Amino acid sequence: MENKIRIVLVEPRHEGNVGSVARVMKNFGQNDLALVRPCKLKDLAFAMAVHSSDVLQSAKVFESVEDAIRGSHTVVGTTAKSSGETEFVRKPAVTPGNLKKMIKGNTSILFGREDFGLSREELKRCDIVVTIPADEDYPTMNISHAVTVVLYELMDTKKVGVNQSFSMRSIEVGVDPMAAREDRERLLSHCERVLTQIQYPPHRMERTLVMLRRIFAKANLTKYEVSMLRGILRKTEWKIRAKK
Amino acid sequence: MENKIRIVLVEPRHEGNVGSVARVMKNFGQNDLALVRPCKLKDLAFAMAVHSSDVLQSAKVFESVEDAIRGSHTVVGTTAKSSGETEFVRKPAVTPGNLKKMIKGNTSILFGREDFGLSREELKRCDIVVTIPADEDYPTMNISHAVTVVLYELMDTKKVGVNQSFSMRSIEVGVDPMAAREDRERLLSHCERVLTQIQYPPHRMERTLVMLRRIFAKANLTKYEVSMLRGILRKTEWKIRAKK
Repeated sequence: MENKIRIVLVEPRHEGNVGSVARVMKNFGQNDLALVRPCKLKDLAFAMAVHSSDVLQSAKVFESVEDAIRGSHTVVGTTAKSSGETEFVRKPAVTPGNLKKMIKGNTSILFGREDFGLSREELKRCDIVVTIPADEDYPTMNISHAVTVVLYELMDTKKVGVNQSFSMRSIEVGVDPMAAREDRERLLSHCERVLTQIQYPPHRMERTLVMLRRIFAKANLTKYEVSMLRGILRKTEWKIRAKK
Repeated sequence: MENKIRIVLVEPRHEGNVGSVARVMKNFGQNDLALVRPCKLKDLAFAMAVHSSDVLQSAKVFESVEDAIRGSHTVVGTTAKSSGETEFVRKPAVTPGNLKKMIKGNTSILFGREDFGLSREELKRCDIVVTIPADEDYPTMNISHAVTVVLYELMDTKKVGVNQSFSMRSIEVGVDPMAAREDRERLLSHCERVLTQIQYPPHRMERTLVMLRRIFAKANLTKYEVSMLRGILRKTEWKIRAKK
């Protein structure tokens, strides 16, 4: 399976940034740019894009993040803030260097607004959250700089001039077929149902489901594993019902 | 010996780029910016610098590269073009990833003009020439993106935490502590207990426990995740017992 990368900018406000992102995408051999409710792209965007106006021109515009990530197997969020006790939507923080081995299949990578990044709800939706290590005095990077770091890491830069590696053939863990995104979503809904049945504290439900989503993504579940896990959940439900 | 990094921009023409460079320097804990015959720095430079105007304001202006690199132990040049047969001034091309272990002491890193980079004479003067691997269709990066890649690599992002040798203050991703092997073992025993309680088919027990072990390993569970998962198992047990 070949991984395809889509760069998704959520509500970019400055057209120059969008142009800069297009440029670095082309530098790193990428061309799938998606824009969610973007600013207008005028002269400055094209000036900053320099020789990557094709990337800019073919950028797809969407009304929602959900539309922009449709068809993606893995959804990656990026954030400047490191995870704290209460910041469960940012857990676990993954470094750009570790991202490459974690992604599988078509991958959308979300970059947030210039002023406040991705929202809590948007981050919750992400399978993987990447945090770029930066100085704590001023960790907020320009969007195009953040895209630079992430794409640079996804390119196997340890080898010189290897752009081939950019097709990024996935590291095969085995012959088992990987679970589709919908399989994982159904597994998560099933988990939620069981958690409700065991009277899991409602105030912890949200963070627990986010944590499970992240664990399942990190584990790159196979179809077999999803079906086995759902078997366990089914048996748990039976046991609970049987005792009623 | 502590290494000190100086970023030297040679004849930058666009003040926005200079501001962007200042920003990413501060993001990566650097503040020594030298400008050789730069353009005027006005509003746009400061707008792009955002919260790094201190770096911009304290930038030193020089009339020549020689003046800008005075006192440096190592001079590094950057170039988009990889080394070709006749391009001896670019040989050997070093990747950003290899730069770190090659530099010693005070180091000036030169970035060239937006349109034609560093001159042949300037490159000749460099002790090390770094080439950022990029797509051969469009390898020329924006200056601030090139600075981003180089500083990102010098930060040693593979390890979380401080990179003392570059006098960067603690750079934290806020990565959660990983679960120890014993934590995972206890989680597995706990799973086995619950599987027994839900009357999971004994002939499937062994393969299911192996599968769970593999999932937990693939997911690289954190301590937080292990403790949350065990919380779910505990609540499942309570629910089952409560119904007896």
